[in-house]
Amino acid sequence: MLRMDAATASTALLTDRYELTMLQAALRSGAAQRHSVFEVFTRRLPDGRRYGVTAGIGRVLDAVENFRFTPAQLSWLADQQVVDAETLAWLADYRFRGDIRGYGEGECYFPGSPILVVEGSFAEAVILETAILSILNHDSAIAAAASRMAAAAGDRPMIEMGARRTHERAAVSAARAAYVAGFGATSDLQAGFEYGIPTTGTAAHAFTLLHDSERDAFTAQIDSMGRGTTLLVDTYDLTEAVRTAIEVAGTDLGAVRIDSGDLLMLAHRVRRQLDELGAVKTRIVVTSDLDEYAIAALAAAPVDAYGVGTSLVTGSGQPTCSMVYKLVARAASADPDAPLVPVAKRSAGAKASRGGAKWAARRLDGDGVAEAEVVGTGPVPPELRESLLHRELVRGGEIVGREPLSAARERHLRSRNQLPLSATQLSKGEPVITTEYTGG
Amino acid sequence: MLRMDAATASTALLTDRYELTMLQAALRSGAAQRHSVFEVFTRRLPDGRRYGVTAGIGRVLDAVENFRFTPAQLSWLADQQVVDAETLAWLADYRFRGDIRGYGEGECYFPGSPILVVEGSFAEAVILETAILSILNHDSAIAAAASRMAAAAGDRPMIEMGARRTHERAAVSAARAAYVAGFGATSDLQAGFEYGIPTTGTAAHAFTLLHDSERDAFTAQIDSMGRGTTLLVDTYDLTEAVRTAIEVAGTDLGAVRIDSGDLLMLAHRVRRQLDELGAVKTRIVVTSDLDEYAIAALAAAPVDAYGVGTSLVTGSGQPTCSMVYKLVARAASADPDAPLVPVAKRSAGAKASRGGAKWAARRLDGDGVAEAEVVGTGPVPPELRESLLHRELVRGGEIVGREPLSAARERHLRSRNQLPLSATQLSKGEPVITTEYTGG
Repeated sequence: MLRMDAATASTALLTDRYELTMLQAALRSGAAQRHSVFEVFTRRLPDGRRYGVTAGIGRVLDAVENFRFTPAQLSWLADQQVVDAETLAWLADYRFRGDIRGYGEGECYFPGSPILVVEGSFAEAVILETAILSILNHDSAIAAAASRMAAAAGDRPMIEMGARRTHERAAVSAARAAYVAGFGATSDLQAGFEYGIPTTGTAAHAFTLLHDSERDAFTAQIDSMGRGTTLLVDTYDLTEAVRTAIEVAGTDLGAVRIDSGDLLMLAHRVRRQLDELGAVKTRIVVTSDLDEYAIAALAAAPVDAYGVGTSLVTGSGQPTCSMVYKLVARAASADPDAPLVPVAKRSAGAKASRGGAKWAARRLDGDGVAEAEVVGTGPVPPELRESLLHRELVRGGEIVGREPLSAARERHLRSRNQLPLSATQLSKGEPVITTEYTGG
Repeated sequence: MLRMDAATASTALLTDRYELTMLQAALRSGAAQRHSVFEVFTRRLPDGRRYGVTAGIGRVLDAVENFRFTPAQLSWLADQQVVDAETLAWLADYRFRGDIRGYGEGECYFPGSPILVVEGSFAEAVILETAILSILNHDSAIAAAASRMAAAAGDRPMIEMGARRTHERAAVSAARAAYVAGFGATSDLQAGFEYGIPTTGTAAHAFTLLHDSERDAFTAQIDSMGRGTTLLVDTYDLTEAVRTAIEVAGTDLGAVRIDSGDLLMLAHRVRRQLDELGAVKTRIVVTSDLDEYAIAALAAAPVDAYGVGTSLVTGSGQPTCSMVYKLVARAASADPDAPLVPVAKRSAGAKASRGGAKWAARRLDGDGVAEAEVVGTGPVPPELRESLLHRELVRGGEIVGREPLSAARERHLRSRNQLPLSATQLSKGEPVITTEYTGG
């Protein structure tokens, strides 16, 4: 379903300069060929969140595949003297030939979960850092917010409509992440075009203001879109607009949208009015500055669908995750048979990390409810073999982990439903399961 | 300087679906050809901010120029039955043929400032809404945060290094916006490639961990990058690392970077150590989770440069602006000579707006300090004619307002320096000047 230049354009320069200068220094010191293991993980969840949601894995695979340096890029790197001729020659030939495994897209994660494990030479793995982190940090932040909102909305449909509130390309990825985490549709056409996500929409106040009267505007919309459309009823007077809407469309009108005011009170009032007018099947869509708390507060209101913009695409207060990409093990020498040595930063600060290549499993209790994220080095205990979380994504440079977005949607729902019930509590708290380290 | 596919790829589907369905309905009702004026403005600044910063204007011009529907996009719209055949034919021919004027990039703005004014037929202007808002809302949010940080840093250089904390394409735009608002360099190579922004970088902990010892790593980096490089000194023990760094590089070492811990205390300690070792010119770069408050707190510390990541690319708590794109006037009919009628939403909610096409001027007091944002309809008072803020950007569909990024940088500095001194106070407060409405 990838249809656009951005999906196939080179991702090679979406990269911090130091990745390439470290590469150059490592090529010169000879350490570049040491077999290395990098892991993506986060030390904590955003403030008070109970679980994280892995999103962007499919986009990471695209980015790795398209991480090739074009002649124009190489010539710019040469002009700017970013790296030397030997390094440029190495980059010209570059494609990732190592292995990547990781959490399936949509899977919940917790502090310390080894979300992605990248293995290869130091050289080939280090330069993927920035692009991989950009994608996972953004998409997972949006998915985490979306998941909370979708849980709060229950069975009511959720529409992503935040494109105008975030970077135009981030918007497309946000629509994708929201879809993974339970939203059913997006207003963003590019997200439909590129990823096959269902698109939907209503009308703006401008459309009403363009016409000589609200009645003219509603008539024009019905003439063009049919009675199943959604009329925006809060440009002038809400009660009058609802009356006009039903006069123009009849009681088969699909829906009305309320985009301002006290939605709880207005939804009740509009529902009553619609019912009195006989439009008992006309639905009510609400859209004004919703977040998971506002959605939860509307649970008892006669609302049929939620459109969410700003708070979704900005991660509902947490616009990024704190995922890092750390070297956790590397060979003792460039010899292909050299043993792997676990490594970890161990300065006095708060950023120390755990060395060694890790596996992860979600341990369930007798009722099938998650009780711990088990992260280990060394052999996997037999009782956890069925609960391992890593999927193979790239093998010897070949992408093997592609899957349809529907698989990620299903995985997310399954993964969230497996968590203790308190996972979807909106109040701040600790991660809903703890991470246990074993081995190493 | 635009060098990449993303800069020339079609922007036409970075658009909410309702823009196209409103277009279809207006084409059918005949209202599509009514001459219309849309304005981009914001009703308020983010919580407690004293001024906003216009950024992304140059990107808006690129997006307008590239807002053309490709055959693949049109065929997708047809397949999905987003719009009818008449509308598709109209879209196939589309290019914007109207006029756009607006605030110069880098200019400060306030609540109600008419940041962008788009004039043309309703049809040609309405469909630009989503793309324009995405760009301005994102880029201006980053620029506003960057400006506060740059003001707090004074003369010390600021490096943008947040690529890994935001969407990979948003990162490029964030580097651009930060540069407009006073940052001097970025770590993001794509931002260098696409926009000519200076790029810079140091090294990661992984580079130290890759080698058998810190000494080996430092030696490798100096061998490759020369003594002018910046060595990362907090992987193991800071004091030992600084000693090793100077032993390996000599007292000509360019800089050391500290990326964790109590930066205020550590900067003093490292400065003392460097001076004692004779490395009196070796600079100290700090980078750990800085925001404008942390930067201000380091004003008295012996720090030579700041690298800022997460808080910059997420707008320091305000990742989006609340800019809207509103129809403020439209012709009474499709007749080219029909008079313009001011229009405005006037529902009971908080979202009412002011009708009429507006001009804006910044009134200065006798000392050249800004004292009000004057926003008006109708004739401009003679005393404000020299202080008008709009630049012509697009005339009859032709882009006329392109300028180098350096012009936006200079404009921002000039504009901020013209504000009352309390503008750069970091504490929360009201907009530093008030907006006065006149006329209409």
